[in-house]
Amino acid sequence: MKESPTILIAPDSFKESLSARKVCLAIQRGMQKVYPEAAFILSPMADGGEGTLDAVVMSAGGVKKQLNVRDPLGRSVLAHYGIIEASKTGIIEMATASGLELLKLSERDPAIASTYGTGQLIKQCLADGMRTILIGVGGSATNDGGRGMAEALGIRFLDRNGQLLPNGVSSLRQLAKIDVSKLDPRVAETTFIIATDVDNPLCGPYGASVVFGPQKGADKKLVQELDNALHQYGELIRQNLGKDVLSLKGAGAAGGLAAGLVAFTNATIKNGAEIVMTYTDLAEKMQQADLCLTGEGKLDDQSKAGKVPVAVASLAARYDVPVIALAGSITAENAALYQEGFTSVFSIQSGVTELETAMQQTDANLERASENIARILRL
Amino acid sequence: MKESPTILIAPDSFKESLSARKVCLAIQRGMQKVYPEAAFILSPMADGGEGTLDAVVMSAGGVKKQLNVRDPLGRSVLAHYGIIEASKTGIIEMATASGLELLKLSERDPAIASTYGTGQLIKQCLADGMRTILIGVGGSATNDGGRGMAEALGIRFLDRNGQLLPNGVSSLRQLAKIDVSKLDPRVAETTFIIATDVDNPLCGPYGASVVFGPQKGADKKLVQELDNALHQYGELIRQNLGKDVLSLKGAGAAGGLAAGLVAFTNATIKNGAEIVMTYTDLAEKMQQADLCLTGEGKLDDQSKAGKVPVAVASLAARYDVPVIALAGSITAENAALYQEGFTSVFSIQSGVTELETAMQQTDANLERASENIARILRL
Repeated sequence: MKESPTILIAPDSFKESLSARKVCLAIQRGMQKVYPEAAFILSPMADGGEGTLDAVVMSAGGVKKQLNVRDPLGRSVLAHYGIIEASKTGIIEMATASGLELLKLSERDPAIASTYGTGQLIKQCLADGMRTILIGVGGSATNDGGRGMAEALGIRFLDRNGQLLPNGVSSLRQLAKIDVSKLDPRVAETTFIIATDVDNPLCGPYGASVVFGPQKGADKKLVQELDNALHQYGELIRQNLGKDVLSLKGAGAAGGLAAGLVAFTNATIKNGAEIVMTYTDLAEKMQQADLCLTGEGKLDDQSKAGKVPVAVASLAARYDVPVIALAGSITAENAALYQEGFTSVFSIQSGVTELETAMQQTDANLERASENIARILRL
Repeated sequence: MKESPTILIAPDSFKESLSARKVCLAIQRGMQKVYPEAAFILSPMADGGEGTLDAVVMSAGGVKKQLNVRDPLGRSVLAHYGIIEASKTGIIEMATASGLELLKLSERDPAIASTYGTGQLIKQCLADGMRTILIGVGGSATNDGGRGMAEALGIRFLDRNGQLLPNGVSSLRQLAKIDVSKLDPRVAETTFIIATDVDNPLCGPYGASVVFGPQKGADKKLVQELDNALHQYGELIRQNLGKDVLSLKGAGAAGGLAAGLVAFTNATIKNGAEIVMTYTDLAEKMQQADLCLTGEGKLDDQSKAGKVPVAVASLAARYDVPVIALAGSITAENAALYQEGFTSVFSIQSGVTELETAMQQTDANLERASENIARILRL
């Protein structure tokens, strides 16, 4: 590689260990020791989950704002969202309003957890004049099918007597009519994009309740109850709105928030990593790069389903830019990873180590591994 | 790097996991996937311990032979040694006759374990016409100062009444005279070289008994007894033979076998890795190489004390050949390792892992890491 290469650093966060921005900086430190003349393009990435807001706002020169909204249990919480004035685009990370990160372990309860706060963030984006809204869904504490979000925007869920349903996901079993007459009219003028890294359906054995319910605190009985409730919800959406969210891939993302967004707005479901790449102009950055570094905590077979490093590797391959991945753990085979476009993949561990220790040393390990890789590149 | 480079692979074994020869082959497989046109020079290394015999015999085109000798407890064991006819050189790995590997854990007893079998191997080398004998000392079960080895060659250890001392290391406390009159006369015509990776003295706080006694099965009391016995032994060597093994660096190697060899032959103590490099013509191989790969199980600060990868890196640096180390664990800092001559160092672990799992996967991990490194070299 030439003496003063342009190096694009576009990693995901190392989950629960280091933010994507700090991952960028650690890799840069390591490379810079060997290539002091290099130009670096730091582009923290995300897959629709944690870090999506920061990645897009930082790259587009947007502004991060805050708003008091209802947390999953109805308490007040200060949530963040982003706006990009130039393109009238709002960026929402649902987890800042409705995420598991806001609850203690003992507070997790998907039977009542609501996405109302996410709806409030959407409403504020509309009030701020945003007419494209990108919603990163991931890390949700909720299993409400986006009902809370819809209520915040004016949708009313009624029983057979025309009465408002009581709170709680299970009450959706009594859902008889969805009244959209009071829906915020700005919704119709706005383009909604859902960024997700899962393609689970709303219901059934691969649905939101069965697959993600347990980690949100649901036991077996509740999982079944939630699944039944969301099924009735999907049925009524089909009957009242003519949209078939029950057979829609990805509708189960964030406890079905994706289904709700598709039902009540013109939202489309997109691969989170791809959409973040688009909103951070990664293709343009890639064309300037002589080398790309990416990574995430765990590079496994799951990574194929639209995770950041795989999306970045595929983009790099398209532009014929060598791309090296750094990960805490790599469980996929070399051959499979090369097939995805990776030039090379390295674990950052320096030896036999325990998970806890490894997670504490991510920053130092990234820097060290990057320096060693750079020294080979220079040969 | 050019399309058809010459790649020298010169690693130590990964202790208790993979022999140096198999390490060579695993690295070669990984590199070969990326550089099918490369010429490979495989040169398994050792530091005087396990693998020394194989490394030297293989490289010099010698012959491996076997001989029934006494094991550390006096039982019969089939030991190996090597001869290189062209240079009349015999190669002995003391552990094959007197090593811990021959004993169950419950059998370890440095109070009685003897190097007699090692002496028998020396005698056989002399009988085979060898006039240079390289003795790799490492992995010993013994703490007898080489007394057993000496007895096998004809030396007699007498008490103040001129009686032969009874067996056992402690009896050396009664040592009053060393009778060398019956020493095998061929010893005097022969050059002895000791290959070791330690520089501990015979006695004292850093001596053979204190430092290595416990792992051979000595409790605190026995350690003191052994240290006293070796002190008397060293004293008599000085008085009767005029050689000062008590102040000789490295004399404590292999429970003091090094001291005995220095006392009763013309042996010199050499850095194990260096001497193996010499006997495997590594400098010559290095001059043909475009790249060198080395490694060992653990690359730590201890590695500095004459371990294989450090010696190889230093040689590579001398000939300006890039040298990459692969290790199970790396605990030394990048900067310190670069200082030693390493171009780059990589752990072969693919993520967070337990020692046992890691050790079972050394072969596959080496191949995978080598392939990833090669793909960067090819950029």
